[in-house]
Amino acid sequence: MKRACQIALLLAASPGIPALAQTIYSPGHTLALQFQLSPAGEPTYQLSLGKKQVLKPSRMGLLLQNQPGLNQGFQITRIDSLTHDDTWQPVWGEQKNIRNHYRQLTVHLRQTAAPGRLLDVVFRVFDDGIGFRYEVPQQPGLTYFVVQQEATEFNLPANHKAFWIPGDYDSNEYTYSTTRLSEVNTTPIEPIQLKADPTRVQTPLMLKSDDGLYVNIHEAALVNYPAMMLDVDTKGFGLRSHLVPGATGAAAYLQAPEHTPWRTVVVSDKAPEVLASKLILNLNEPTQLTSTDWIKPQKFVGVWWEMHVNRASWNYADTSNIKLAGTNWSKLRPNGRHGANTANVKRYIDFAARNGLQSVLVEGWNVGWEDWANNWKEEVFDFVTPYPDFNVTELQQYAASKGVKLMMHHETSSSVTNYERRQEAAYRFMKEHSYDAVKTGYVGRIIPRGEHHDGQWMVNHYNRTAALTGQHQLMVDMHESVRPTGLHRTYPNWLASEAARGNEFNAWSTGNPPEHETILPFTRLMGGPMDYTPGIFQIQLEPWNPAQNKGRQVHTTLVKQLALYVTMYSPVQMAADLPEAYEKHADAFQFIKDVAVDWDDTRILAAEPGDYITIARQAKGTQDWYVGAITDEQARQQTVKLDFLPAGQQYEATVYTDGKGASWDKNPMAYQIRKQKVNSKSVLKLQLAAGGGAAISLKPVAR
Amino acid sequence: MKRACQIALLLAASPGIPALAQTIYSPGHTLALQFQLSPAGEPTYQLSLGKKQVLKPSRMGLLLQNQPGLNQGFQITRIDSLTHDDTWQPVWGEQKNIRNHYRQLTVHLRQTAAPGRLLDVVFRVFDDGIGFRYEVPQQPGLTYFVVQQEATEFNLPANHKAFWIPGDYDSNEYTYSTTRLSEVNTTPIEPIQLKADPTRVQTPLMLKSDDGLYVNIHEAALVNYPAMMLDVDTKGFGLRSHLVPGATGAAAYLQAPEHTPWRTVVVSDKAPEVLASKLILNLNEPTQLTSTDWIKPQKFVGVWWEMHVNRASWNYADTSNIKLAGTNWSKLRPNGRHGANTANVKRYIDFAARNGLQSVLVEGWNVGWEDWANNWKEEVFDFVTPYPDFNVTELQQYAASKGVKLMMHHETSSSVTNYERRQEAAYRFMKEHSYDAVKTGYVGRIIPRGEHHDGQWMVNHYNRTAALTGQHQLMVDMHESVRPTGLHRTYPNWLASEAARGNEFNAWSTGNPPEHETILPFTRLMGGPMDYTPGIFQIQLEPWNPAQNKGRQVHTTLVKQLALYVTMYSPVQMAADLPEAYEKHADAFQFIKDVAVDWDDTRILAAEPGDYITIARQAKGTQDWYVGAITDEQARQQTVKLDFLPAGQQYEATVYTDGKGASWDKNPMAYQIRKQKVNSKSVLKLQLAAGGGAAISLKPVAR
Repeated sequence: MKRACQIALLLAASPGIPALAQTIYSPGHTLALQFQLSPAGEPTYQLSLGKKQVLKPSRMGLLLQNQPGLNQGFQITRIDSLTHDDTWQPVWGEQKNIRNHYRQLTVHLRQTAAPGRLLDVVFRVFDDGIGFRYEVPQQPGLTYFVVQQEATEFNLPANHKAFWIPGDYDSNEYTYSTTRLSEVNTTPIEPIQLKADPTRVQTPLMLKSDDGLYVNIHEAALVNYPAMMLDVDTKGFGLRSHLVPGATGAAAYLQAPEHTPWRTVVVSDKAPEVLASKLILNLNEPTQLTSTDWIKPQKFVGVWWEMHVNRASWNYADTSNIKLAGTNWSKLRPNGRHGANTANVKRYIDFAARNGLQSVLVEGWNVGWEDWANNWKEEVFDFVTPYPDFNVTELQQYAASKGVKLMMHHETSSSVTNYERRQEAAYRFMKEHSYDAVKTGYVGRIIPRGEHHDGQWMVNHYNRTAALTGQHQLMVDMHESVRPTGLHRTYPNWLASEAARGNEFNAWSTGNPPEHETILPFTRLMGGPMDYTPGIFQIQLEPWNPAQNKGRQVHTTLVKQLALYVTMYSPVQMAADLPEAYEKHADAFQFIKDVAVDWDDTRILAAEPGDYITIARQAKGTQDWYVGAITDEQARQQTVKLDFLPAGQQYEATVYTDGKGASWDKNPMAYQIRKQKVNSKSVLKLQLAAGGGAAISLKPVAR
Repeated sequence: MKRACQIALLLAASPGIPALAQTIYSPGHTLALQFQLSPAGEPTYQLSLGKKQVLKPSRMGLLLQNQPGLNQGFQITRIDSLTHDDTWQPVWGEQKNIRNHYRQLTVHLRQTAAPGRLLDVVFRVFDDGIGFRYEVPQQPGLTYFVVQQEATEFNLPANHKAFWIPGDYDSNEYTYSTTRLSEVNTTPIEPIQLKADPTRVQTPLMLKSDDGLYVNIHEAALVNYPAMMLDVDTKGFGLRSHLVPGATGAAAYLQAPEHTPWRTVVVSDKAPEVLASKLILNLNEPTQLTSTDWIKPQKFVGVWWEMHVNRASWNYADTSNIKLAGTNWSKLRPNGRHGANTANVKRYIDFAARNGLQSVLVEGWNVGWEDWANNWKEEVFDFVTPYPDFNVTELQQYAASKGVKLMMHHETSSSVTNYERRQEAAYRFMKEHSYDAVKTGYVGRIIPRGEHHDGQWMVNHYNRTAALTGQHQLMVDMHESVRPTGLHRTYPNWLASEAARGNEFNAWSTGNPPEHETILPFTRLMGGPMDYTPGIFQIQLEPWNPAQNKGRQVHTTLVKQLALYVTMYSPVQMAADLPEAYEKHADAFQFIKDVAVDWDDTRILAAEPGDYITIARQAKGTQDWYVGAITDEQARQQTVKLDFLPAGQQYEATVYTDGKGASWDKNPMAYQIRKQKVNSKSVLKLQLAAGGGAAISLKPVAR
């Protein structure tokens, strides 16, 4: 399916001849990318969609440690171009087939000054955006080199609206600020981990222009390199890449031949097309796994939310000073609130078995939780020693007897050297006890001290962990990791990451504003699935622990929690609330039981960042469809045409909507469920409450 | 064998009452240690030997990050003292029995200011010196804390002569400077790794006073803490501890209860008593290994010196750019000089078997040596993949058939995170292939980047490696590690370290001056055995590789190389030269074949740092004795009384001396060997050439 044609044109090698601008169009001629060397020999590019300017001329290049930068003094030695078009099938995903169609321009550059160092810039131009990366070829005199920073610019033509979070090197668990570029200012925002520079923001950065363009800037295939943040010029509206530094202050230690991740710009005049884009996934490498049948998209429950609402504890004993080595755990005085005890886990296993959920996550099963956080201690967990009240073998047998899998939890407390020393043994332990998925966590400051969550060293750790779990045929779901960049194409056992502000913040903070879930798909989810942990039914948290949860609540209606299973794509979805919460609302819970986690097709029916999203998806290998619609703090009506259904086929729709008078803050738990017959010509009008949503399951009616 | 008496005296708790000076004497009353709080509540101590002042009042304490220091504002709450006397047997060592006899003073301190933080100072006073450490008890309000620096002083009463090397955080491979304290200046010294502060020196620091005191300052039991260096006050002759910082600039991340290493001061008016001191070993914890019979002191040869003299290479191919992953090693073009090839290793196995040497070290056997050094790359070695010309299985079988062990080599290139990820697999590989000892190496800059060889993180790595190899019943010999502090008592499988400037520097640098080996026992060896790699017979190196070795030579006579097997104590001794060098001098090589590596008794017969050393040792489990005598660049006569031999027993002495007209620079290879009958009344006069030595083996004659 690959049609490639290659053109090589050798330019006159005489320096001083200004290189002509090179323009390349996307396959459908929607986008035009122009490359040009400035008079100083700086590589620059610009991008337009039809007559609209997407990016003004923007400079490119790498700044190196202890030697001149690879960002100026260049001449073009050769230009290659090709067209690529094929269609591939992901192991799991939002659609069965993904078309990868782009035109590629490779600009080979050589510095005129000795030693004539080489740099290639490779552009891939799709109809919905571009990717480009730097490639440092093997060459004499430039083998090992250190990237101090990157000179890449994304110069916007105007003062766009931006959906941004601060450029914290160690956390992305922020609510989004929506401002003009000129108003970006992180100063008033309380840091989650590390205070960001005042005008530094993270990617994916979602932008909207006054002339109706939706622009998303991110990166793809983040490998052996730090994450890219963006420094905003609040006067000129330029964005300049900023690489997260490592312990020495430098960004990346590299060895030629090497290339950077792809810098991506997704652009459309229709917001849904941004969500539908597969550009980032296409810029990642195919998996090298030869067998993938052990990778299973799944829903799970967990001994988890009860700790977040403070009804139970991760720790077994109440002490603020404990040492991993030498502690006799069975001699500790149990606090009586430890969630991960055998009986409680069995209760979750029973619930999962009754309701057809595949797995049970158990957090707090292993020793070390007494003083695990905020102490920057290296020997914090060993990942193989259960607390005295957690019987690994008994639970292994019990879960097997019920046809349910247990999901392992490895909180590292960001003591990553400790985890790396113990990873092999921990994964062997998992296999011996029939676990086939692990949720990892990186709360707190990184050890090796001085490194950051989003720096090169940690990026390599996450990727190594994806590869290593893959070798052990284990699935992995990473929390507090760097935000994804489409690497789940390469590592399909890396089911999801958190890497953003999840539902849990509703339990113990000011929470997530109702607009939060309408922004995440345009930002965080552009890089890959998020383990957002939807499905909280007990919206007002006071019943669980009145003293601790006073006034706290989830900032959605109950039905919006259902809709998130469709709007927040992930192959691993938690039913995050407690069994008793679901048992009180069994009719609404039916949607969670029914909804799929793997899809043959996806339609973005309506979307506007910060306002609303409506998505329909076809469950894998079936004719069933599910629809989710959500809104921000504004109540609104969404009209859903069911024209995605096969013509002539009658369906039964089960429609879950916010109840009369529902709203996220005043009356969040009111809902209605109705069933009706529909077909491809039906149009449903959904009333979404303020902070509300709607969810629909569509099953064909046998003729 | 333990006689302990404990005295507790509770002082008046009322603040403002100045604490009286507390004086404690060593068991034989040779040393007096006085502790006193200054008016500012600073802990101070001073030390005297008879009427001679060893240390003037010197302040103590810890400086903490983000909180007031634990170095002032104290009052004494209680003082405990006890006397300890027992005798223990090391797994291997310089003598069969070691007496551990000291008086201990524990000063319990409490700060008068809230929150009344606690610190204990524990002194152990032996007849040959003192040790003291800080203990931070478990207490409210001080659980996790960060030691930014230490306030410990060693204030000398006069401008002593000092034998010092610069305070490089990453290397101790320096020649010694011998100056007055007032003249300490590291500025002109070319750094091996990291430029030291102008007046910063390393420990063990050897000092000699004008009134005849020999003082050695070091530390014992360096665990979970950085190495201590000393900042010299060149005007007042005070020394102040300086802890090697980690990546963040702080020194140690600790959790109470915790204690520092012991700060040690060995002192005597006789230089030999400094060498005979077992104080540092006594301050270390006994081993927890229950079985130690697999730990075998040994002599070994190796595919090693031929690389140092540039006749062979560690690397298999000549390329300066290779990546560990994805390289097809069998496709590389071999350079034809690779030392670690199967045939060559067999040659060494044959030589070891013929000469009764236990092991053969092979360096360069594993892939990755093409560009291993100076590139600060993380993925450098995997420790399990041999080069195509090194047949692991064939050599395993061949060595077994000859009764010889192969010794593994793990050069990490200081990419320690990489090593830690691979350590378990590497040790399993060793056991599968019958290796039972490993030489590790830490050349270059440390990864995690920002950490130092002598910082807390790496100290923990070395100790963890000692423990981990012990769990696998593997012996370990560490090169480029932190200098030892007696931990071989705790980890007797940690046979030796390099951690100083070894014989190898004679191959490819300006070399080691003739005095070097007379200083090392007073400095580096105070903490533990050194793998100095003696036994170079081909003193002038030109024959091996005239172009590269032009004018280079070992800075000793041949006989001094023999004497080093006795004067440089180690349970693992290399016969470092090539087989052909030994075969040319089989009569002299006989001493290396004969000499023991484990001892029942040791007598320091004569010693003066920087000048000469003569030592006699009794081989383990025998009546055989060996004597080594060495001198610096001065020729001298040493008179050796054999009164250590059992009375009435006749011995045959084989005496290896420098030949007539020998000298290290003009005529280094001239030697004489004579045999004579001796007994305990004999006195031998040994003529040591300039840079020369003498070696004697003494075997009882059957009656």
